[in-house]
Amino acid sequence: MTDVAVTDVFDAVSVIATKRDGGALSDAQIDWVVEAYTAGEVADEQMSALAMAIVINGMDRHEIARWTEAMIATGHRMDFSGLRRAGSPLRTVDKHSTGGVGDKITLPLGPLVASYGLAVPQLSGRGLGHTGGTLDKLESIPGWRADLTTAEMTAALEKVGAVVCAAGADLAPADRKLYALRDVTATVESIPLIASSIMSKKIAEGTSALVLDVKVGSGAFMKTEPDARELAETMVALGHDSGVDTVALLTRMDAPLGRTAGNALEVAEALEVLAGGGPADVVELTLALATEMLALGGITGVDPADHLADGTAMDRWRAMIREQGGDPDAPLPVAAHTETVTVPAGGVIESIDAMAVGVAAWRLGAGRARQGEPVAAEAGVVIHARPGETVASGAPMFTLHAADPSRFAGAIAALTDAVRVGDHTVEIPHRVIDRVTVGS
Amino acid sequence: MTDVAVTDVFDAVSVIATKRDGGALSDAQIDWVVEAYTAGEVADEQMSALAMAIVINGMDRHEIARWTEAMIATGHRMDFSGLRRAGSPLRTVDKHSTGGVGDKITLPLGPLVASYGLAVPQLSGRGLGHTGGTLDKLESIPGWRADLTTAEMTAALEKVGAVVCAAGADLAPADRKLYALRDVTATVESIPLIASSIMSKKIAEGTSALVLDVKVGSGAFMKTEPDARELAETMVALGHDSGVDTVALLTRMDAPLGRTAGNALEVAEALEVLAGGGPADVVELTLALATEMLALGGITGVDPADHLADGTAMDRWRAMIREQGGDPDAPLPVAAHTETVTVPAGGVIESIDAMAVGVAAWRLGAGRARQGEPVAAEAGVVIHARPGETVASGAPMFTLHAADPSRFAGAIAALTDAVRVGDHTVEIPHRVIDRVTVGS
Repeated sequence: MTDVAVTDVFDAVSVIATKRDGGALSDAQIDWVVEAYTAGEVADEQMSALAMAIVINGMDRHEIARWTEAMIATGHRMDFSGLRRAGSPLRTVDKHSTGGVGDKITLPLGPLVASYGLAVPQLSGRGLGHTGGTLDKLESIPGWRADLTTAEMTAALEKVGAVVCAAGADLAPADRKLYALRDVTATVESIPLIASSIMSKKIAEGTSALVLDVKVGSGAFMKTEPDARELAETMVALGHDSGVDTVALLTRMDAPLGRTAGNALEVAEALEVLAGGGPADVVELTLALATEMLALGGITGVDPADHLADGTAMDRWRAMIREQGGDPDAPLPVAAHTETVTVPAGGVIESIDAMAVGVAAWRLGAGRARQGEPVAAEAGVVIHARPGETVASGAPMFTLHAADPSRFAGAIAALTDAVRVGDHTVEIPHRVIDRVTVGS
Repeated sequence: MTDVAVTDVFDAVSVIATKRDGGALSDAQIDWVVEAYTAGEVADEQMSALAMAIVINGMDRHEIARWTEAMIATGHRMDFSGLRRAGSPLRTVDKHSTGGVGDKITLPLGPLVASYGLAVPQLSGRGLGHTGGTLDKLESIPGWRADLTTAEMTAALEKVGAVVCAAGADLAPADRKLYALRDVTATVESIPLIASSIMSKKIAEGTSALVLDVKVGSGAFMKTEPDARELAETMVALGHDSGVDTVALLTRMDAPLGRTAGNALEVAEALEVLAGGGPADVVELTLALATEMLALGGITGVDPADHLADGTAMDRWRAMIREQGGDPDAPLPVAAHTETVTVPAGGVIESIDAMAVGVAAWRLGAGRARQGEPVAAEAGVVIHARPGETVASGAPMFTLHAADPSRFAGAIAALTDAVRVGDHTVEIPHRVIDRVTVGS
């Protein structure tokens, strides 16, 4: 006598019901539902119901680890253990940011770390909503292309050490499909789902070490430090358990990072940093992350600021752009239309709302509302005054860049209450709040 | 300066996020999301995420009422206020059961109540999962058809007084679409969604009064009395606020109702009741519901048992079946194969698990796993001993009926622990637990 019908027919329903009722999913349930969803046997509407149940009722550490492994198992794992330069093995170290407004750190960071002899195999994504994507930014460089074969990527790592390219379709395809679904079903905001999404791709990418930049604040997914810490600890543990040396920095994302939000505008700012200048907060974070990556790669006793100051990192940037078909000397796209917004009052800038700036840049055309939409390379926001700075009444606060002047109204509306001005000196905290490791 | 992009593009996401975060949906959000979902502008995966958020986080009474109205507004409301017989207005009274195993009460009840001069405009559904559907049962009668036009339905009500037919596609189409979605996404078990689903159809159906049979117990959606009471109170209030006089009975659904679960098997049992016999619990519930319906229709001082005893209700049944193309004298389908399961031990039957019997009947072919699948008219379970009865070791407990003997193994597996036998006399409570009205 075998149990013939119920469990077969209603598998998806029973998995969803388990999580709906607050239970823990079994290993078999997770393996099955992730695989069957990727294969199209579990429908989108079933997975979105499950995702909502996970958002509200959570997953424990074991479930998250299994979910991550199951997503990796739907595709292929890359392997960079064979990388060589001049006959010696090359160590791989990657970085991932949970996303913030004006976060162009990957651009100077990859070449900077590569300039010390490590390989940085950045598989990046495109932006969606108020945060920009690294690929969108680099695509504002004439000729640059994101789609490399694995052979081209390997060659670029062995030659230049830094590469930024689009993840292939067979890298955790479950995550790709689930991410698109979560985006339209209000199921993005979940530590288990965010952690497993990020780590499935990074583990499958085959990096041997990883530094995570976990943003916290009004412009980030994680609004509070405890949430950000939990996300960081979850991801560090996931990495460690899968053999990837992982360290996380908790960093502030209340104000936008640097002075620009957009695509070409952020590339220009990254070039300032690579030339030894740039906004202090962008430099601070670039160096903090570089120090962690170098340490994981076994390189200590160096000051990464040196390679920004002496042009070594800039040379590596130029080689990286050229390797991917780009012209590092070509002028970046410039907006046909700009409009300046002045400060709301004279005084000391107390805060600039990152989310508002992100939404403004998005509405100007720098971001997309739906996957697959094009973005405007030249669109974005330039921020003239930073928190802590004193401004005179009527001084310029933002310059908006757009290809189409009809974009300005929406962007200005988004910025209405974005800036707070006060009377007193403001102490601006460092971007880096804390460091999370497996031991911590 | 108008807010141009964000709210337009992300409406569905913001509605889902409101409920995900435990908030109350606004009237405008409810009206929009129900209408847009029905029109196909909100995708299935978005509605299923919202439904899961509702299952877990609930809706308050105001949200439930608005949700119900919004579902009604997606279709047409029927109107039976013009019904006449011999020049006098006919009052309409309907009944709805939340679903139980062996629940064939609608079959004798409609003709019985109609025999006292009321009109019973039953719009019924087909079964899904372990509970059978009234239409599936009646379709085991040769020639009988469920699909009547509104004109045919009106004519049947004016002539016979009782009709059982399929709801038209324009009766709360939002509910039809949402019900199919909930069924595959584990979002059925929600008092707000169950109440609004049932009441949207019954209010749109245009009945002027309604008696609800809210089942409670292991074989029902509502496992506990407090849940069943909350569902009953919610539906009674919804009916009252929409001008439908509504009363609910809370009734036990631990053991199957009567001695049969299946389609033709249940029709045969209903005929026993209409002939003045039948199992005591089926008769009790039929009379209790008839008394409530007659009272709402303004008919008091009669004992509905009289029309079962004297054949008046049976005459009305025969007229009802004929009016819808059926032959009340044709033999019902009989299973080609039967198999008998004996009692697990001699003694007093303490309990029979309704859910197990429902699943067994389903596996035998009486029910469907997917909408649109056919059901086997002749399949089902006959129950030989009832709770409270004393049985000898080896006595027959169930007879299984199927068109295909390969169905038996799964059904027998479902029944493995379905019957508990003890040593002592067992007091079997009445089916009716309580009565819920607007005042109560």
